Amino acid sequence: MRGMASPDERTIKLVVAYDGTRYHGFQRQRSGLVTVQSELERAISEACGERVAVAGAGRTDAGVHALGQVVSFRTKCGVPPDRWPQALASRLPPDIMVISSEEVPKTFHARFSAKAKTYRYMVLAGPADSPMLTPYVARERESLDVEAIRRGAAHLVGRHDFSSFWAAGSPRSSPVRTVEALTAEAVEPRLFLPPGHRSELVIFTVTADGFLYKMVRNFVGTLLEVGQGRIEPDDVKRILESRNRAKAAPTAPPRGLCLVEVRYS
Amino acid sequence: MRGMASPDERTIKLVVAYDGTRYHGFQRQRSGLVTVQSELERAISEACGERVAVAGAGRTDAGVHALGQVVSFRTKCGVPPDRWPQALASRLPPDIMVISSEEVPKTFHARFSAKAKTYRYMVLAGPADSPMLTPYVARERESLDVEAIRRGAAHLVGRHDFSSFWAAGSPRSSPVRTVEALTAEAVEPRLFLPPGHRSELVIFTVTADGFLYKMVRNFVGTLLEVGQGRIEPDDVKRILESRNRAKAAPTAPPRGLCLVEVRYS
Repeated sequence: MRGMASPDERTIKLVVAYDGTRYHGFQRQRSGLVTVQSELERAISEACGERVAVAGAGRTDAGVHALGQVVSFRTKCGVPPDRWPQALASRLPPDIMVISSEEVPKTFHARFSAKAKTYRYMVLAGPADSPMLTPYVARERESLDVEAIRRGAAHLVGRHDFSSFWAAGSPRSSPVRTVEALTAEAVEPRLFLPPGHRSELVIFTVTADGFLYKMVRNFVGTLLEVGQGRIEPDDVKRILESRNRAKAAPTAPPRGLCLVEVRYS
Repeated sequence: MRGMASPDERTIKLVVAYDGTRYHGFQRQRSGLVTVQSELERAISEACGERVAVAGAGRTDAGVHALGQVVSFRTKCGVPPDRWPQALASRLPPDIMVISSEEVPKTFHARFSAKAKTYRYMVLAGPADSPMLTPYVARERESLDVEAIRRGAAHLVGRHDFSSFWAAGSPRSSPVRTVEALTAEAVEPRLFLPPGHRSELVIFTVTADGFLYKMVRNFVGTLLEVGQGRIEPDDVKRILESRNRAKAAPTAPPRGLCLVEVRYS
């Protein structure tokens, strides 16, 4: 029976990287749209001759990428637990890659067993644009004040009610989450810019025990206004404390977002 | 008449960046296949209501990218000479970008006026793969000996007969070119790899007064064999002196190649 472990079933954990540009998000859709989950399930079924349902740690939206998405599934398939990258490589499109695989305890579930996740958001800030970076960054024509962004971001670290950064219309549970870290750094993406032209890649990295829907993209939307000098770093504290989504800035676009890592105990 | 300058015509130079993945190379094809040149000509014609033929400095193959391709064309169009990036932005697909534009002397021709060009070739070497880098790199599973590659590359610098690195079947003229510089460096592409997984990006940069067909990709093919320890650095000298294409290694794939810069006097 689906969901029940039979004695000869193993639970397999995969670390998966993908370029989300072409996909209608991670999660399988009833309409038959192509998603990362539907591609993984198809490839595993082809490799095993057995229908499999995978669970993903983070349900990334359309256009969002992953370097360290984690999925789990149960299977009777004879593929050795560490050989799934090789078994699936030729069955997956080039923009989805299985990085590593292992057998985990039967009770493991990619989403419910996760203790923390880390997302990264990249913004290309400055006059120079790059066609190679376009699918992975949001664009700002003006340079950003990264030191002001850091001071604003500090207000979001800790255990808070994040209602101000929770997408309207999403199913409601508790709006309280613990943000372990929220950093911003600037690097020069020299390899991807025309010689003599400059922009900075501003990289936001957020680790939390859980994420409300669109929370990272809403953090970034507001912190970009700090970096542009449109609001003050301390305004972030007032926005957070208002618990009012209308006080925060618009959501940053999906293509700058990447699920980098999922941590388990 | 085409090719004749009329008094009210200007010659415009554009610096163009593109992701070549989707294109059948730079050069317009009789068959109507979509190329970078055909997209640029369509966009300029739409902006001006005037048919225009552009000349490109480098005729990059299918899958080859550019950060600093240069094109020139003659036009009576009223777009101010430095405003072509804005005039074309909404008329070009997101994987082709005009970086800068200027008016140049009527005798300027993107290809025939060029004094030197710089190409870069990137190889992702090591166990960790990345779906974000796939369109821009060749892949090697094993790490490469970059110091050996540098010693091999030194033999290719200078004025030589490069027949050994000239694609078979290409139209013949003089096989002598001057390679000003050929460097190799390794960087860690941290932003594009899953945490805890490592590979190096080995970056070849070649500047020459002119390039034989597939010369860079043939240099890289042979230098990869040096980096793998399959041949010695000094074998590169013997291969060069043989003037025999059959002595060199297979051509490296197009997607690692990028036209970085074109120099004019």
